[in-house]
Parts: sequence; C-alpha cells; structure tokens
Amino acid sequence: VRAINLCLLGFGNVGRAFARLLLDKSAELRERYAIETRITGVASRRLGWLAREAGFDPDKLLDGDFSAGTKCGFIREWLSRARANALLEISSLNAQTGEPAISHIRAALEHGAYAITANKGAVVHGYRALTELARAKGKRFLFEACVMGGTPVFSLFRETLPAANLLRLRGVLNSTTSRIFAEMEAGASFDAALKIAQDAGIAETDPSADIDGWDAAVKVHALATVLMDAQIKIDDIAREGIRGISAERVRAAAAAGKRIRLVARAERRDGRVVASVGPEEISPGDPLAGGPPAGSIIHFELNTLHDLIIASGRQGPDTTAYGLLADFLSIVHAPSLSS
Amino acid sequence: VRAINLCLLGFGNVGRAFARLLLDKSAELRERYAIETRITGVASRRLGWLAREAGFDPDKLLDGDFSAGTKCGFIREWLSRARANALLEISSLNAQTGEPAISHIRAALEHGAYAITANKGAVVHGYRALTELARAKGKRFLFEACVMGGTPVFSLFRETLPAANLLRLRGVLNSTTSRIFAEMEAGASFDAALKIAQDAGIAETDPSADIDGWDAAVKVHALATVLMDAQIKIDDIAREGIRGISAERVRAAAAAGKRIRLVARAERRDGRVVASVGPEEISPGDPLAGGPPAGSIIHFELNTLHDLIIASGRQGPDTTAYGLLADFLSIVHAPSLSS
Repeated sequence: VRAINLCLLGFGNVGRAFARLLLDKSAELRERYAIETRITGVASRRLGWLAREAGFDPDKLLDGDFSAGTKCGFIREWLSRARANALLEISSLNAQTGEPAISHIRAALEHGAYAITANKGAVVHGYRALTELARAKGKRFLFEACVMGGTPVFSLFRETLPAANLLRLRGVLNSTTSRIFAEMEAGASFDAALKIAQDAGIAETDPSADIDGWDAAVKVHALATVLMDAQIKIDDIAREGIRGISAERVRAAAAAGKRIRLVARAERRDGRVVASVGPEEISPGDPLAGGPPAGSIIHFELNTLHDLIIASGRQGPDTTAYGLLADFLSIVHAPSLSS
Repeated sequence: VRAINLCLLGFGNVGRAFARLLLDKSAELRERYAIETRITGVASRRLGWLAREAGFDPDKLLDGDFSAGTKCGFIREWLSRARANALLEISSLNAQTGEPAISHIRAALEHGAYAITANKGAVVHGYRALTELARAKGKRFLFEACVMGGTPVFSLFRETLPAANLLRLRGVLNSTTSRIFAEMEAGASFDAALKIAQDAGIAETDPSADIDGWDAAVKVHALATVLMDAQIKIDDIAREGIRGISAERVRAAAAAGKRIRLVARAERRDGRVVASVGPEEISPGDPLAGGPPAGSIIHFELNTLHDLIIASGRQGPDTTAYGLLADFLSIVHAPSLSS
C-alpha cells in the first residue's frame, strides 16, 4: 500500500465534497488501488497555507477544525512541508487570466507533484504550457472536472477514442441558463426566472457569467483546445447571451414542441476551428433534444464513429469531486506514478 | 516502428470495413502509435484458414482476391503460420453457446496473441474464462464492438469511471425494433413495418433475434456481466418481444407525445443483478427520450456521478470496425504489449 499526500487548494463546496468522497472510498482505494491517501495540505484565501505532514484528520477538516496545520508563508513552502504528491486545484475561477491557479499548478508540477484542477481558467489560459511542463517533469496535468461537472469528456477522448478525429461538437454546457429557460417555459418572465434560479442557489448574485454566455464560452474553449487542438482565444468565440430572449418567444417555441437553450458549438472549417455560443431553438429530432432539464449534453461528430452523445442530468459539488478523484485514480493507475 | 500481425476470423461486412479502416489509418498508426499492422491471416467458413506471413495486400483482400494465402488445416496452424499477434474474431453470432468463437479466442490467447471480438456470444458465454485466460497469458481479451456498434461503453467504464459502482442501467440497444416502431408511428402495421426494415437490410429474413428481444437480452447480459459483475444466465432475463404491439397502441402513444421502444434494464436488487427486456412507453421527460431514431442509448445510474447518458445515432459495419480498432489501440498503447 502506497501512501499518497494530497494538497487541496480551495476548501469550498467542491473541496469539502472531495474530502468526504475520499473518506467514503478509503477502503476501496486501499483494496483495489493499493493506495492510502492523506490530506497533508489545505489552503484557501481565508485559511492561508496550512500543512501537516502526518496528514489532517478529514473529519476535523469537515468540521471546520484546521488547528492541526502549520501555517506556511507561500505555496512552495506549503507543497514542500506537506510533501505533496498531488495538488487538487479547486479555487475559484478567474476567466480573464486563469491566475493565480496557473502559477499554483506550475509550482506543484515543478515541486514534482501531479496537478488536477476543476478550474476552467487554468485550462483555457494554461493548457498547452502546463501540459508541456507536466510532460517535462514526468507528471500529469488533468482537468476532467472543468466541464460537465465530472462527467467523463476529456478522458472519454483520451482513453476510449484513439485515432478518432473530432470534426464538430455542439452542446448545452451551462445549466443555469437551462433552468432559466425551463422557468420561462413554465410561464415566468426572464427577470422572474432569473430570480428563481438565484433563490435556488443556481444563479449567482451577478449572473452575467452565465446569462451572457461567458461560462459556456469558457467551456467550449476548453473542449475545442483540448479535443480539437484549436488555437483560438476566448474573444474569437462569437458570443450571444440570453438577456434578449422574451418570454413570448420561449413559450411560442415550447408550444411548437421546441425548446430554446444556450448552445455552444465548435467546428473545423477550412483547417481551423470556429466556435460560438448563443441561444438556439432545439426541435424534437435534434440530437440535443434529449438533454436533461438541468444538466449538460454534448453531441460530437467524429470521423470514425459519426456521432456520439454524452449527457448528464444531476451535477453538483459531489460529481465535480468525483471528476477530481477519477483524474487522480487515472494517474495512480498508470504505471508511470511509480517512477 | 513495431510490426504487428493481425488475423481476421470472419471477412464479412465488418471484416472488410476493418481492413479498409486499417488502410485509411495506416499513416496515423505509424506516426502516432509507431506501429505497422499487417494482415497475415484471413479465415471464414467459405475461405478456410488462409495465412501469409509476409502480409496480405489489403486492396486485394477487398477485391476478393485471397490467392496469396496458404491454406492451413486448423486454427492453431493458422495462428502459427500467420505469426499472429492479435486475433480479430468477427464471425457470426451463436447466441446459444458462443461457439466456435470462444474456442477460437482461447486458441489465440494460448498462442500468445491478443483477442478482440465483435461477437456478443463470446462475451455472454465466455467473458470470465477468457478474461482469466488472457490475464494468465499476459494478454488481453476485449470486446468494445459487441454493444452499441463501436460506441465506447465497456472502455468508458474501464478507463474513465474508476471507483464508480453502476447501480442500474436502462437502454434502447436494438435498433431494428426502433426502426420498426418508427415506421409504425408513421402509420405502418407491424407486418408492413417489419417488411420495410427487411427490405432496407436492417431486419433479418428470420427477424426473431430482434423482435423477440434476444439481441437486446444478449446485449444487456453482456453489459450486466462486465459492468455490474452480474452472475446471471440469459434465461434469467425476463424477455418480452414486440410482436404483440398493435399499430393502434404505437400511434396512440405517439399522439400523446410518447414513443414505444424495446427497453433493456439491469439493476442491483438485494445484492444481485436483475435484468429484463420488454417494450416500454418513453415519455418526453424520460432520460431515454433523446434516443436517436435508429441508434442506441443507455442511461446509467452510478453511486458517484448519479447519472450518465451515452447515445449514438449512426451505427454500422464501419463503426463496429472502429470499435475493434479502438480495442486494438488501447492494447497497443498500454505498456504491457512490449513485454
């Protein structure tokens, strides 16, 4: 049984769900994967950099008791004191630059740890450089939890679709806007639907990341970059939000058996990848028509399989935490970790 | 660049599509995977066991010219003369016993070759023994092409969903019955719809494997055995076909916004797995409602991700051939092949 030291950067809903999942799975990890994980570092803006080489008691962490940790001055000291084997980067998103997540991930890789993130910003702004650095260090940089809340997308292509070229993808990636449309279909105005989503804790107080299409744009950028090797910037993505959609238009579509959803697209065209985000009418025969009311769905067109749909209805901090664990086990499972 | 000798057992539509795919992908296989494949054996009931150690010219095989091959007396001689590194078992299904596919796969593994099959019978009747034999020989036995025509299902769970337990699955796995239902929704009687499917080459002259639910039962058996470690026999699967469904019932469901489809289920219940196949009404909110008209869809419920839907619309010999190639590359990609 190999002991593996994990450092959690960010201890909000996802960090807590991850700690809980590790507890739930500890026997299985020992028996099936011959590993024993210890959380030897926890950090957040509020907590600072806390390390404990012998490992924190996860139950205490979940109770909000961080007193066992030693405060470190900066991330390299933290990784070093925690003897980190893997960094779980689950801090909040900076969509403009991906910082400071990218610098933190770089520090972890340079320290000799694996880096796993749920932070889309790090993928959008750092995918190539971080992947390259990980390779140079004999480590890995993985990010399954960034899109579709832990549902396998990146690993699906990496592990199960060899020698397949992705020609086009089209998906509903933002569940907040889906919820708003669903409320509008049920009769609410846009403002009322947004309020319902905010009261349910689904939409943010400042909802612009969702309803102006930024979240979907960031996600389709990550998908296009990783799966289609697209060389595009976020600003290259034509982006239309949903503020302009009237309740009448949503209800008229519903009456005709259709649904309006915020759809993200990426497609190879003349040797480059073109991506966009905007509201679209989805008719019953559309591959996206089966999309769950509150989840995500992506329709992929490939040169080998023609088409492939992947969807998931219930996503949350627990599924995102599973995405992190799946990345971690995919690394641990690979023979290279032993080196 | 490593040369790998492939032996094709069965050279019908899927075998030909596989040979064509190898031709299309040969540059990519050389450059990205550093392998060069040669077809050194081709066999079928009609052709007998044909071997050519230097490799057949795939174009000639596709033109029906097998004259370069040396006739062998039996499979072990064939594998040996062809110096087989991998067997592609793509003969026709024997759902009752899985033979002779199972014996052929066993011979390949004992010879020291990898075994990849599109033959559901070999999985249903031989999964545990063949997997065990492969492990003992340091080889692999894979079968992605058996269900959903090459869409990743087995590899999805094996490679991307570590430490996840599958609690329940429910899917439309037989596309022939879906086509028949679609024709009935459009107004045809059952007999007329069946005739249309037969004329289109979708349904067999003896359609009982599809319309009596055998095909779906075999597929759900394979899924339950591999993904849920079910210890069940085909006869344990409650099975109802679609002969008894009237056009009126299909049209009444369609008028109410529903569709009738042949649905396969498997579920853990009191420590064992219970599976069934039968026609079900699928309402608009059903996770299977987005199923493509002529493809397959499966809704999985897991203990870690809650739910996951995978679907594919266009399946045929070319996608099945890709499933075989994906298995092959998954083996080649793994470090163990070099041993």
